[in-house]
Amino acid sequence: MPVNVIAPSAAHGRPVVPSRGRLRPLGLDDVQITDGFWADLQRLNASTMIEHAQAWMERLGWIGNFDAAVEGRLPQDRRGREFSDSEIYKLLEAMAWEVGRTGDEQMDARLRALAARVARAQEPDGYLNTMFGRPGQGERYSDLHWGHELYCFGHLIQAGVARARTHGDDEIVQVAVRAANHVCDVFGPEGRQGVDGHPEIEVALAELYRVTGDRRYLEQAKLFVDRRGHGVLGDIELGAQYFQDDVPVREATVFDGHAVRAVYLAAGAADVAIEADDDELLAAVATQTVTTLARRTYLTGGMGAHHEGESFGRDFELPSDRAYSETCAGVGSIMVNYRLLLATGDVAHADAVERTMYNVLATSPAEDGRSFFYTNTLHQRVPGKVPDEDEVSPRAASSLRAPWFAVSCCPNNITRTVASLAAYFATTDDDGVQLHQYAQSTIRAEIPAGVVHLAVRTTYPVSGRIEVEVLAAPPGEWTLSLRVPAWAAGATVTDGGARGVEPGYAAVRRTFAPGDVVVLELPMAPRWTWADPRVDAVRGQVAVERGPEVMCLESVDLGADVAGVRVHTDAAPVERDGQVLVPATTLDLADGTWPFGTEPGAGAVTGSAERGLVPLVPYHRWANRGPATMRVWLPTVD
Amino acid sequence: MPVNVIAPSAAHGRPVVPSRGRLRPLGLDDVQITDGFWADLQRLNASTMIEHAQAWMERLGWIGNFDAAVEGRLPQDRRGREFSDSEIYKLLEAMAWEVGRTGDEQMDARLRALAARVARAQEPDGYLNTMFGRPGQGERYSDLHWGHELYCFGHLIQAGVARARTHGDDEIVQVAVRAANHVCDVFGPEGRQGVDGHPEIEVALAELYRVTGDRRYLEQAKLFVDRRGHGVLGDIELGAQYFQDDVPVREATVFDGHAVRAVYLAAGAADVAIEADDDELLAAVATQTVTTLARRTYLTGGMGAHHEGESFGRDFELPSDRAYSETCAGVGSIMVNYRLLLATGDVAHADAVERTMYNVLATSPAEDGRSFFYTNTLHQRVPGKVPDEDEVSPRAASSLRAPWFAVSCCPNNITRTVASLAAYFATTDDDGVQLHQYAQSTIRAEIPAGVVHLAVRTTYPVSGRIEVEVLAAPPGEWTLSLRVPAWAAGATVTDGGARGVEPGYAAVRRTFAPGDVVVLELPMAPRWTWADPRVDAVRGQVAVERGPEVMCLESVDLGADVAGVRVHTDAAPVERDGQVLVPATTLDLADGTWPFGTEPGAGAVTGSAERGLVPLVPYHRWANRGPATMRVWLPTVD
Repeated sequence: MPVNVIAPSAAHGRPVVPSRGRLRPLGLDDVQITDGFWADLQRLNASTMIEHAQAWMERLGWIGNFDAAVEGRLPQDRRGREFSDSEIYKLLEAMAWEVGRTGDEQMDARLRALAARVARAQEPDGYLNTMFGRPGQGERYSDLHWGHELYCFGHLIQAGVARARTHGDDEIVQVAVRAANHVCDVFGPEGRQGVDGHPEIEVALAELYRVTGDRRYLEQAKLFVDRRGHGVLGDIELGAQYFQDDVPVREATVFDGHAVRAVYLAAGAADVAIEADDDELLAAVATQTVTTLARRTYLTGGMGAHHEGESFGRDFELPSDRAYSETCAGVGSIMVNYRLLLATGDVAHADAVERTMYNVLATSPAEDGRSFFYTNTLHQRVPGKVPDEDEVSPRAASSLRAPWFAVSCCPNNITRTVASLAAYFATTDDDGVQLHQYAQSTIRAEIPAGVVHLAVRTTYPVSGRIEVEVLAAPPGEWTLSLRVPAWAAGATVTDGGARGVEPGYAAVRRTFAPGDVVVLELPMAPRWTWADPRVDAVRGQVAVERGPEVMCLESVDLGADVAGVRVHTDAAPVERDGQVLVPATTLDLADGTWPFGTEPGAGAVTGSAERGLVPLVPYHRWANRGPATMRVWLPTVD
Repeated sequence: MPVNVIAPSAAHGRPVVPSRGRLRPLGLDDVQITDGFWADLQRLNASTMIEHAQAWMERLGWIGNFDAAVEGRLPQDRRGREFSDSEIYKLLEAMAWEVGRTGDEQMDARLRALAARVARAQEPDGYLNTMFGRPGQGERYSDLHWGHELYCFGHLIQAGVARARTHGDDEIVQVAVRAANHVCDVFGPEGRQGVDGHPEIEVALAELYRVTGDRRYLEQAKLFVDRRGHGVLGDIELGAQYFQDDVPVREATVFDGHAVRAVYLAAGAADVAIEADDDELLAAVATQTVTTLARRTYLTGGMGAHHEGESFGRDFELPSDRAYSETCAGVGSIMVNYRLLLATGDVAHADAVERTMYNVLATSPAEDGRSFFYTNTLHQRVPGKVPDEDEVSPRAASSLRAPWFAVSCCPNNITRTVASLAAYFATTDDDGVQLHQYAQSTIRAEIPAGVVHLAVRTTYPVSGRIEVEVLAAPPGEWTLSLRVPAWAAGATVTDGGARGVEPGYAAVRRTFAPGDVVVLELPMAPRWTWADPRVDAVRGQVAVERGPEVMCLESVDLGADVAGVRVHTDAAPVERDGQVLVPATTLDLADGTWPFGTEPGAGAVTGSAERGLVPLVPYHRWANRGPATMRVWLPTVD
């Protein structure tokens, strides 16, 4: 039975559509990124990354699992991990955004063909999972801890939501609705009182409610949010905090446990809070996010310090060595922070989105779009081993990007986020338009006074100059708000005359005529960055940032290991011919028999080279030139 | 069929009996620790720890598994993890050493009773494991990766070896021999070409060869050593280095992968190398050990940096935060270093044994002997939760000592090592007697010239004064060698007159008469210790050591968290009334919204208290006074 789907023209291709909040989202119909850093990545996504992902999942049989289900060849022919179905759904979501972004008909045909293979495997009652439920397989929902059935449904529903918002009703939308109905039937108020080991169904059901208006999905999402945190999943060796089942989300004070699970849950809880008018829950998620940014987030925006349990560390425990900083946790952080930006208008969330976009999202894919970081260390001690083109890597073993992983959430999370990225750049409110992220782009926004058209011209982050030309504007005063990042002390806005503006939102309120130009100048000189002294891992070290980009030192630029480099902070980093350079001395370090001793340096320093300038590269570009050692945080000369 | 066992009177209660080497071991019959630090721990072991371990394993049904096997109640009545049998064997080994040490008849009766329960479960062909081989259980050796069957046999054989060397032939010795024969039958040259996921059988079979003279055991140990490292176990997500199956042990250059597995394997490889006259293999193990001490060992002697995979990190990757430093890896390090000390006479191995004894072995058990550290972090950021007396803890979750763990190798490894510890204190060679560790003790040693009796009088490490009185000596010159630890610059030996001695072995060669006294004075003033600059985790920090003890700062002594303390290294630490104090200032640290900024300290430092003296405690004593935060490495004032 078909379901009512809000017309895609009303959805504007928006990835998140809350019914209330300080700011209102724009969508892929409203914002087009036309050139520069993110346009390049979107083109790479369209030309290569999405296809790369599909080819791998076809080759490994993960897509074929759906055919095998139809043909009765399961479980014997099943391939991949228990959550592999979700990877196909993330890919479908990426394709849906991509079709919405460009109208690419070939991509649309690929999406339909893939959706049809998925749809055929759906059972009459809406259940759909290639890992469970058949003779020889585990029973449905027999392993809520690790089975990921509801997690898979969540990503299926998100694919349906993306398709509904960019295209309208379609086969994958109906598959998603049937799956959601099934979930509500089984896990509803009178049903099984369980939750999934991996949150994701919450955010998906809340969004499906927004698409369909059917409150049953919202109520089910709320049930899942409220059930969790009471030990309903039982204990495991990693502890119940691993899947956020130790403390109810409305009582938690900071993100904890498995980082991706934590941020996915927070995104779902935020959506539930907004739609259910639950301001206590919304405030809890906002507090957790702000506290996590203050104490448990890497300079890159990355979240999750530990390899074990892929989890958050304690406050200020942010080791550079083996920083886990899973790519998917970065994607999830963008999901949460964007929702909170819409809900509260707090610029800190837009700052966090930008930091994470440049230094996690953009770091994962290789320049050629054919390999990806799963984890994002901030310190590489030993040059990594390049995985073969045909090799499936374990999730975190390689220190180079890998073509594919046994657990391949990260590449698929990249593709869906990159395809929908334009939506994160601008919003509206009753009074005007807010620009949160900057790229060469066009923006069309409806505000109460009428329709605004903007052209944004910039090479940001190459340059910090951002020109916003008004192409069309309604009569009367309205406000153009331009985000000034927290790092951009000394920024100016030129609107007629130039004026200094503080970090936050620089507001230009007046009547606008076509051809009016407002210029934001962000200071892009590279700068030293120090850490809170409780971040023990980087004591005696500094990082370098340039605009939104975190820089790093890579051994390929030294012709030597990075271990001996000591920087001098008595002078600022400089930029020459587009390259960032820092004053540094290189120490000779000798091997000993015991690395601890009664003098500073423990006797290991045997000499040093002359002071000179050492080049850095943006962190998101590291490891594109073969195996290397790398540091984000650089020891200072004592 | 009984087997020939070397008479215990010839074994002297020695835990390790190599047939060749630079030094010859003494045993529990030769060395008695009579008072002081280690005597106290041995008494606690005898009075409390061994009984505590047995009571827990009885209560949890791990011992009952053997009864259930006999009574046909497996698998339904089986309790505990797949390797729980091994815990009973470690306990039997501890009991055997304890009976050997003291002759305690009650302990002997308990040992016999427990051994009888184990013996009854042995199958006619020698196989013995409560987890495998019965209807409803996995087949024998169907899971060499994780099943731990050969690992369990290894500990069973070590229990038999300990009993043989302290008592002579006995039921548990025969059980061990039958098990060893079974292993040789199944895994021999023409048999199954497998190895166990967890090394241990190697060292055990080599020792059983030493006990029985049956070369078949040595050959089998050698087979296991040689087979490993060629990917015979296949790959796992953690990588083949997890169980040292990536590189043959004779080609490895440093310990890698799971730390306990690595050091157990090294101990077995060393024994095989010695008995098989394989000097290449012995040199490989020695090089790996020396390199691991130089690059991959904590100040405490602890090994293994990562929680994930319980594994070694890269060179110089030694985070204080969540340092894994598993207690069992410390025990294994003592095993390896003691073997290499005997083989090579290199004092570095005796230094490593002492460091590990005081700062890992002694750290694990609580003052009351009723709870244990499994991991040994060097930085506790958040006060831990005290486990209930009746609660079984996950292996690494609690930051306080726990009464028992689901994986309880550590308490049992402590009990067997503490009971046999005296053997590690002294050795002989053709020329005399070497004292490696110091405690109030008596030593009887046979050297070619005759029998030496010594009385060692000291309160070490309270005092650094060690008096060695010769009670009996053969005629003619011989050498009394006293280890001067690497940290003991400024040590003196008084033999008639005082003379300065360098770290290494201070040799006193002369004829001795009863009543002669040689005095070693080790400087015990607390000292600052710095790390090699490649140990990034402790950059800008110093530790304090006093003699062999690593000190730490514990919040219970501050009445505040340890995070704000900054030490002044312009003055030395001092000792007053037996308490070590360091000059320090305490910073006020404020919360912010983002922990990185454009000035040192990132704006978090809002004030500081007056300079004063802050007390430290030995690391091995921390967390005996309830939940606390703790640091070994202390940030210095900038």
